[in-house]
Parts: sequence; structure tokens; C-alpha cells
Amino acid sequence: MAQQERAVRTRRAVLEAAATVFAEHGYTAATVADILKAAGVTKGALYFHFDSKEALARGVLEVQANQPLPEQEIKLQELVDVAMSVAHRLRFDPVVRAGARLSADPAGRQYYGSAWPVWVDVITQIVSAARERGETLGHVVPREIAELVVGAFNGVQLYAQLETGLKDVEYRISVLLQHLLPSIASPSVLMRLDVAADRGERLVRETAALVPELA
Amino acid sequence: MAQQERAVRTRRAVLEAAATVFAEHGYTAATVADILKAAGVTKGALYFHFDSKEALARGVLEVQANQPLPEQEIKLQELVDVAMSVAHRLRFDPVVRAGARLSADPAGRQYYGSAWPVWVDVITQIVSAARERGETLGHVVPREIAELVVGAFNGVQLYAQLETGLKDVEYRISVLLQHLLPSIASPSVLMRLDVAADRGERLVRETAALVPELA
Repeated sequence: MAQQERAVRTRRAVLEAAATVFAEHGYTAATVADILKAAGVTKGALYFHFDSKEALARGVLEVQANQPLPEQEIKLQELVDVAMSVAHRLRFDPVVRAGARLSADPAGRQYYGSAWPVWVDVITQIVSAARERGETLGHVVPREIAELVVGAFNGVQLYAQLETGLKDVEYRISVLLQHLLPSIASPSVLMRLDVAADRGERLVRETAALVPELA
Repeated sequence: MAQQERAVRTRRAVLEAAATVFAEHGYTAATVADILKAAGVTKGALYFHFDSKEALARGVLEVQANQPLPEQEIKLQELVDVAMSVAHRLRFDPVVRAGARLSADPAGRQYYGSAWPVWVDVITQIVSAARERGETLGHVVPREIAELVVGAFNGVQLYAQLETGLKDVEYRISVLLQHLLPSIASPSVLMRLDVAADRGERLVRETAALVPELA
């Protein structure tokens, strides 16, 4: 294995271990020692990539929006797709779970920031493009929609996490979108959107087939 | 002052102090010593009412839904009124702020529970009554709406808290309601709902005038 490839693998293993520990215990209770143990790498290897607990949290937050999603004919479908694929990944990917927990932690955020600004930018861009194409209702303000979606999504996923252990998070996010979209999308666009609860699972499978190294 | 009245005042002072400390530091970081200091009562007085940090958290959660709101001609206005008055009180009442933070704390909830089930019950009852009166669209499932509203409300208020220090929380909750209600209320009901950002402030003022001891 080339040295660079090994470095990339080590970095990924450390990030996944950090995410698992942050997702389970939260930032304050997590320790670098726990993360080291979960990662199965040497202390030197970990510190080569991340020199503190803060840096580990920032590393986990930086990769939140890295998963590419296929472009869609209807731009607002891409808003649905972002939400439904994150909802699906919450159940299976500790990196996404840690991203949600770290971003919502009032005590930790002052040290490492939050993934919310990136998600707000992603969704603002989608809604702006949708508005330019005439897909939205007239009163829609892209940034306001984006902040509403990020805030409400986070609340609904947290509700699912704490009340049902994330078992029905995709269904709950689908219900949220079904209730928000009628006041965002024009009726002819609305009826063509796929907001089924298994949309995220189908997308993640499709994306994995396209980009095998991300599977 | 009668002994019973003094006991009620002491209990209230302790609860407000506990709420202030929980809202600022979270459950795990809060200590009974901090709460004792903030309350300005004797250790004996505090322990007479609450025998542990858990009991203090449970006490704060129990009073979340205690503020009475006036009945409305349109039942769905009462759903708006619950949300808008809680949004307003988040800015001014540490008891409400602590309720939100304690309920969303994954680590603490196992010890003291959550205020969410009570809010879900309150809203389920309102939406059920609204449906019986024909105020809602046909597909509305009251409990599903209630869980959606509680989850999304919590996410939006947390977003406002972490991004703008709650300054615009009433506006953001008003935007949330404006986007959710078109898929809940029938059009003729929808156009008569008051979801203005200052609705909560007006309600709290009105309620305080009716029930002076709660001001």
C-alpha cells in the first residue's frame, strides 16, 4: 500500500472512531483516549492527523456534506434528497450522527463550530436555483427556507433519536417534508416530488454504485 | 406571611434558580451548590422541597405546561398560541429555557425524563378537537402532527438559540407555523389564524392581566 493511501485510511479510521465516540457520549464526555482505543491506531498516528479533541470534532464536521448526490431534473427534488439521504445515513453512519450531536451541543460549539452553516448554504443554493426555474411559490426566500429546514430537520431527528432510537427517523423526516413542501413548491412541481420514506436508502445505494470507494 | 405561602414562594424561588442554572450550564455541569447559591435559600429549605439534582430537574419539567391560555373560537388558533407563547417565554423565562434544554439532553433524560410527552398530549388534544370541528384537512393524524410540531419547534428554537441567542426565535417559530399550517388547516380556517411574530407577547400580557399571580 502506498504511503499516501495508508495515511488516507488512517485518517478515515480515526475520524470514524472519533465520530462513534462523539455520537455516543457527546463532546464533553468523550476523551482522546477513548477515540484512540476505538480507532486501533498508534497515538503518534492519531496526533499526526489531529492534534486535539477539538481538531477531531472539526474533522468530523468538515466531512458532513461530502457525499455527492445525483443531479435531478426537478431542483427541489435535490432538497428532498439531501434531507432523506442524511436521515437514512443517521441510522447507519456514526459520522452523520456525530455531526448532528456536535452541531447541537451548546457547550462544545464554541470550540469546534457547527455543520449547520454548510447545510444552510447547500439548501439555500438548491432553493435559489429552484426559484429561478419557477419551481417555487412566489413568496419563497431561499435562505429563510434553508434555515427553517435545517432547524426543523435537526429537531425532528433529535425527537426520533430520543423517543424511538432513530428507528423511524426516515418516516418522520418524510412527514416533515410532506408538511413543509406545499408552502414552498408550486403545485405542479409538488406532485412530482418523491418524498417516500425509503428515498434516502435508494439514493445511498445508487450513489454507492456510482462511486464505489464511498460505499 | 402564612407558613404555606412561604413554602410556595421558597419552592418557586428554588425552581427558578434551578432553571437558571440548568438553562445556562446544562444538567451534567450544573451542581446543587450552584442552585443553592442562585436561590438564596438555606440548604435545609432546598432539600425540604427537592432531595436531589434529579428531583430539581423533574420539578422544572413538571411546570412547563402550567401557564393557562385563553380558549379560542378557532381550535387551531390554540395550537398556534401554545407555540407562540412558549416561543415568547423562551426569551424571558428561564423555566421554559431549562425545559427545552433538559428535554433535549441525551445524557440527562434517563434520570429525569422530558417535557415532550406533555406537549405532545396538549397538541394532540387540540388537533383532535380541531378535526372534530372540521377545521383540518382530511388526512390529518392528530398525534403525528403533535410529534412533528414538538420535534420541529424544538429544532427551530435550538437553531435560534445557538445562531442568534434567541433574539429572533418568535419570528422563526412564526415562519415554521406559516409553513406547516397550510397542510394542516382547511383554507377557510387558515386565513383566519393569527400567526404574527408578536402573538406570544400579546397572549402572555393578556394572560398575566387575567391571572395576576402568574405575572
